[in-house]
Parts: sequence; C-alpha cells; structure tokens
Amino acid sequence: MNHPITFKMVARDAKTHARRGILTTPHGEIQTPIFMPVGTQATVKAMTPRELKEIGTQIMLSNTYHLHLRPGEELIREAGGLHRFMSWDKPILTDSGGFQVFSLASLRKIREEGVSFRSHLDGSAMFMGPEESMAIQEALGSDIAMAFDVCTAYPCDHQTAKDAMERTHRWALRCQKAHTRADQALFGIVQGAFFTDLRIESAKALADMDFPGYGIGGLSVGEPKPMMYEILDEMMPYMPDEKPRYLMGVGSPDCLVEGVYRGIDMFDCVLATRIARNGTCFTDDGRLVVRNAKYARDFGPIEEGCDCYACQNFSRAYIRHLLKAGEITGGRLCTIHNLRYLLRLMERIRKAIEENRYEEFRNAFFARYDMSRNF
Amino acid sequence: MNHPITFKMVARDAKTHARRGILTTPHGEIQTPIFMPVGTQATVKAMTPRELKEIGTQIMLSNTYHLHLRPGEELIREAGGLHRFMSWDKPILTDSGGFQVFSLASLRKIREEGVSFRSHLDGSAMFMGPEESMAIQEALGSDIAMAFDVCTAYPCDHQTAKDAMERTHRWALRCQKAHTRADQALFGIVQGAFFTDLRIESAKALADMDFPGYGIGGLSVGEPKPMMYEILDEMMPYMPDEKPRYLMGVGSPDCLVEGVYRGIDMFDCVLATRIARNGTCFTDDGRLVVRNAKYARDFGPIEEGCDCYACQNFSRAYIRHLLKAGEITGGRLCTIHNLRYLLRLMERIRKAIEENRYEEFRNAFFARYDMSRNF
Repeated sequence: MNHPITFKMVARDAKTHARRGILTTPHGEIQTPIFMPVGTQATVKAMTPRELKEIGTQIMLSNTYHLHLRPGEELIREAGGLHRFMSWDKPILTDSGGFQVFSLASLRKIREEGVSFRSHLDGSAMFMGPEESMAIQEALGSDIAMAFDVCTAYPCDHQTAKDAMERTHRWALRCQKAHTRADQALFGIVQGAFFTDLRIESAKALADMDFPGYGIGGLSVGEPKPMMYEILDEMMPYMPDEKPRYLMGVGSPDCLVEGVYRGIDMFDCVLATRIARNGTCFTDDGRLVVRNAKYARDFGPIEEGCDCYACQNFSRAYIRHLLKAGEITGGRLCTIHNLRYLLRLMERIRKAIEENRYEEFRNAFFARYDMSRNF
Repeated sequence: MNHPITFKMVARDAKTHARRGILTTPHGEIQTPIFMPVGTQATVKAMTPRELKEIGTQIMLSNTYHLHLRPGEELIREAGGLHRFMSWDKPILTDSGGFQVFSLASLRKIREEGVSFRSHLDGSAMFMGPEESMAIQEALGSDIAMAFDVCTAYPCDHQTAKDAMERTHRWALRCQKAHTRADQALFGIVQGAFFTDLRIESAKALADMDFPGYGIGGLSVGEPKPMMYEILDEMMPYMPDEKPRYLMGVGSPDCLVEGVYRGIDMFDCVLATRIARNGTCFTDDGRLVVRNAKYARDFGPIEEGCDCYACQNFSRAYIRHLLKAGEITGGRLCTIHNLRYLLRLMERIRKAIEENRYEEFRNAFFARYDMSRNF
C-alpha cells in the first residue's frame, strides 16, 4: 500500500522505549515525539497561525465533528480546504468525530451502520458512520485522517468494551475501503477500554490492517493514571514498531513524559489551552495559578527561563491584572505560555532521546515536578 | 515654562486648516495628525504591544479612573510605571479620570474640592479632585497627562455649561500647581458644552494658562455631528496654533477626516475596538458587518487593498465562522483590521497634507464613503 506519509526512525533511547522519528506529510516534516495543539473549530483558541508557528507548532489537530456542524465541510472545501480556510500551511490531523459524537451529541443511537445523534448546537438530527467521517475528512483535506471508532466510558464492563472494540475493527475496514484521497493518510485507532487482553487483541487486529499510523483511543477518559500507564506497558509491544503511535487526548506534562517513555510519538489535548484561559499555567514545578492573589505584586515572569512571548515581556502581576479585569489578552498570554511549555518540553524530550539519556531526563523531570500541583 | 514635549509644524495645507506636525515626547516622536488606540485597563483590548507596533501605533491612551480602581496606581508604580507594567516603550497619554467619573461612577457628588463617587466595580466610596488625578497620573508615568475637568451631558443648559466650564478652568490651575513630574506633559482641556460663546471663552482662558497642548472635551457625547463641526469651526481660531490639539473621544473615520480638516492633531476612541469584537469593521465604503450571513461564502478579505494581518491572511467567510463560533480570534482579527484601518487613514491624511492636497483627499473620501453605513 502506497502511503502519503513516511515515518523514519532517527534514534532510539537504549534504556527506555522512547523513540525519535521524522514523520513526513504532504505539508512537511514533523519531528517526533510531538505535541499537537488542538484547533477544534478551525482555530487554536486565542491563537493565530503565526503565533502557533512562533512557538514551534509542527502540526495541529482539528475536529471533524465540530467542523461538520459549523461551518460545514462543503464551505471549507469551497474555501480550498482546511489549510487554506484557516491560513495554516503546515500539517493538520483531523480526528474522526467518533469521540465527540460520544461525548457531546445527545440522543445517541449506535447501530452497525453508524451513529444517529442530535447536534449539540441546535438539536438537529444527524448521522455519522465510517463512510461519512471519511467523506468529511477528505473534504477538509487534512494530512492525517483518523478512522471512525466506537468510544467507551470509564468504567465499562468487559463485554461492552469487547463489543465496542470489535465494531471499531469492522468500522476501521470500512474506513479503509471508503478512503480515497491519495494525499491524505488514514490512521487506525486501537480500542479495548481498560482491559489488557482487549487492548492487545485490538493492537494486533489493527496491525494486520496495515495502517500507516495508529491512534490509541479511549484512554485518559477518567481512569487513574497508573491504570493508563499499566495498559500502555502491556499493549505497546503489540503496536507496530515502525509506525507512528498517537496517544489521543493526552496532554499534561507528566503524561507526555510517561507516554514517550513507553514509546508514544504523538499527543494532543485541549488541557493547555482550556486552563490557560482561566489563568492556570504549566511550569516545571507543576501548576501555577496566575490568578492567585499571591502573584498580585510578583513582577517576575510566569516561568523563569521560558522563551515564550508572555514570559519574555510580561510579569505575573500584569497577567493577573488582565485576567482579573476580564481582558482577553490575559488568556492569550497564558495560552502562548502553556502551548510553548508543552512544545518546548517535547523539544527537550527529543534532545534527551537523541543523546540517549531519556531515563535521566525523566528522573530529573519528576524529581522537580510537584505532583500535588498536577492536573 | 520648560515642557517635556515639543511640537513642531512640518507642513500646513493651503486650502484647509489641516496641519502636519511632529510631537516629541520622552518616549519618542509622534507624527501628527494621529489616532491613539485606547488601552483602558493597561491593554488595548485583544491586542499585544507588538501587534500595536506592527499596525503602526505611535502612542496609546490609558484610563486613569480604571487603573486607579484596578490594579491601583501604587502597584503600577512598583512595577516601574505603566510603560514597563504593560511592556509598551512608546508614548502613552492618560486621561484625567474626569469623563469616567461622570459616565461610569455612581452616587456622584461634585463640589469645588472634587468629586465623591462610588466605584462601578465594587461600590466602594472614592474621591477624586485635580490633585488626586495628578498624583495618580504621575504614579502611572504617562508621557502626557490630562487636566481633571468637569464634563457635561448633551443636551445641557447654558448656565450649567458655564458653571462646569468655569470650574474646569479653576481645576486646570490647580492641576498645573499640583503637577510636578518633569518628564510628563500636562494638557489642559477646553470645555463649554454646545455653546460657541463658552467654547471660545474656554479656549482663550486655557490659552492664557500656557499648557503645552490642549484637549477638546465634552464633544461627541450624543450631539449631532453637524453641531460638533460647527462648534469646532467657531472655536478653532482661538486654540493656540503652535500647540497640539486633541479632540477627545472621537474616532469614526468620517470624524477623523473632518476633525483634521478643522485643525485637529490628535484623536482617540474605543469605537474601533468595541465594534470589532462584535464583528463590525471599518472600510473606505463604510461599515461592514462581517457577521452578516451574506459573507458566509465570501472568500475575499475584509477590505481589498488593506495591508493588515487579518486582510492579508484570512477571508470574510473564515472570520465570520470564528465570530459565529464564539472564537476569540474572530474579534482579534477584526480589532487588528479596525485599528490598522484608522492608523492607515491617518497615514493617508498625513501624506495628503504634506502634498498640499487635503481638500481633494477629503472630497474623494466622502465621494466614496457611504454615510448610510456610518457610525
């Protein structure tokens, strides 16, 4: 099978499963491991494309479900595709809409054919199955499309998880069949909820379908982090080694470090941007709530040593003032910092892998990171 | 009297009262006529300082009343002054707080001493007179401070206007006496409401006090525009010719063109930023409401020929999508366009004056500008 993307391994850490790769897409190269900022509605909240580039964004994610509802994929196709519509000329990954249909839409009915639901915006009746998801993602023209999967909640019983997984596998085949765009890669999604046997079965089944890359879905949905790490420990040996591995919806600093440790190459999450607008920031010491009264007269930056525009130019006191005064720029500056924090963390991670010292990096990170100020 | 600012006339239009000057302040030169973006709470809403510079901002305005209430001038003094607090190294003008005390605060009591009022934020009792306003503005450290004046509403009777004007003159003297900062200029404010005799009397009285510049307050507060223009026509001959003249709170495109025509050098207004966040934009053809359904599939820029970041990179369809989806970036892009529109209009105005063709410029402007789509 001829794929529009290639994945080349550059380095492997000797003592851990961490890997350093280059993912080549129709819109350019991505150095992995990488974090992908999320632009749900064809925009990363509070950011412009040039700000995203400035902080080192290599690839962004956008949501099929949201764009299907508004403004609609036909309008975006008319605009020349999602890249042109939002003026972003680097790679884009679109999710399948599966997770949103399960988490946002109402009056959901799941059949083998697909999912009937009502729009969370206006209540209108809609239907999405593997073929619809593929058609929408092809209209959007992302570099990487994701297969339409069945998501389960935490907790869920073994039978429910097994049924959802098996349907996900059948839908993955339908996605492959429906997918036609030669300049777009289609990734499969491993499911299996919180059951190691199912996760391994799913990883093997998806591997047999020979996707150019694999998402790991259905984790980080409320289960304890040690449970997620244990599942990853067990399943990762069954994930194709030469393909990129994308841990979906995961994006707190500690999880990025732990995910890479277990061989993950790609991450995305709205956490960074969502907490930023409320005045909460990432630092190497853990969570910092800039809104707090104790920073009212703190004229230092959000994080000493950070190279972002916010930290280079503004104090905690000023950003706190903006947040308290309800000024958009307060949330903007925290967003810039949080995204830059994660992208810079990935830069440090890549360097550590290249220098074959990822275990030391991870140890040093957790020696400093205050888990009582975690997310 | 030794002033920290100088005003040098560069060119005068032969057929109109339009003038082209250079105002030198402790934080640099300002080419006049100029529009000043308003940063009420120590930030121009939705903009960062580097974005302000990129669109050609030469000087910004901030509000004494708002900063006094939050975060307080002592905190800003501790931060090293307003320039450093907000990371803006170009000139800043602060208003006196007078207008806000009259328009925002509640339970207002005006005596000769000053104004007692309650904060519009938390209802706490406050007092501001000429001395307090001077002390706050000196703590902020703006390049240009404004005298604390008495504002009147539209309409108002002659006696009320006369009393307010006379008190404004007495307060202007108290401001001069209280003002000590050698690196800050203090501008007087001409009042007199909508009565030509009072406006002329006020212009003369203020001229006698030898301020380095003059605001014209109490206009554009609800009166018809022709009334404002008529008052300006009558009073401008009495405004010192060699001093900068600042028409306060005026900032629609047509008013800028008409103000310059009558010899105004400086303007400020929140209109540009306020309407932007609601998706309304300035163009040479008049108001353009990007939110309108008719732009849903319009893939052209807000305004053809505009050099701003929004117009260079995004379509009306995209910006409309952002606005409809409640995305901050929609309002940001409209803000960038609107401010750049006014600053570019002033650039065109300055060039027309330099080339001694301001009357032609004004005629061409109004031949195109659709007054039925005005503000």
